[in-house]
Amino acid sequence: MSKYGLHGKLEATVGNGSQLAEILLGASRLVSKAKGCRLYLVSQESTGSDAVWVTEVWDSKEDHDNSLQVPGVKELIAQAMPLLAGRPEKGQELEVLGGFVSK
Amino acid sequence: MSKYGLHGKLEATVGNGSQLAEILLGASRLVSKAKGCRLYLVSQESTGSDAVWVTEVWDSKEDHDNSLQVPGVKELIAQAMPLLAGRPEKGQELEVLGGFVSK
Repeated sequence: MSKYGLHGKLEATVGNGSQLAEILLGASRLVSKAKGCRLYLVSQESTGSDAVWVTEVWDSKEDHDNSLQVPGVKELIAQAMPLLAGRPEKGQELEVLGGFVSK
Repeated sequence: MSKYGLHGKLEATVGNGSQLAEILLGASRLVSKAKGCRLYLVSQESTGSDAVWVTEVWDSKEDHDNSLQVPGVKELIAQAMPLLAGRPEKGQELEVLGGFVSK
């Protein structure tokens, strides 16, 4: 059965990419306990870049949407918002068919 | 230490997205044994779409580049080529900082 994937960019204001990435790494620890979370990766376009990417895989879109209710997530969003250069774009939605993940 | 990420699209000719995805799922099984392979996911933009995305994480770009030498990979590329609507674009390179992967 396919899974719900989301690949999206958050653009930090100048010089704040690494701080934004740290907050998102904190989010990955929180959502790791959420129902249906399979993958939550945080990347930068390059070292120190202000463009931070989040790549997520969930059992379903519903599980993803519910993750906003995980305790602590709203607080992290509130920390991240002032660092953003603009409104986050809607990420790219994917239907993840399968593949390999190292244990 | 950050890892090497690559997120790229392969566009199949009309109606061939699912066949292309199957070939790439075969590739994921081959590269799962390659040195440094951490993640190799195959997605479609939506059910039956001809746009197929591959999301990879490797310990290093060098490990990724060497994966073309994994036995069987070149044969799969040869199977995939006639299904492609055009030359594959260079994927988006990312510096993967970390995150969560379910076991």
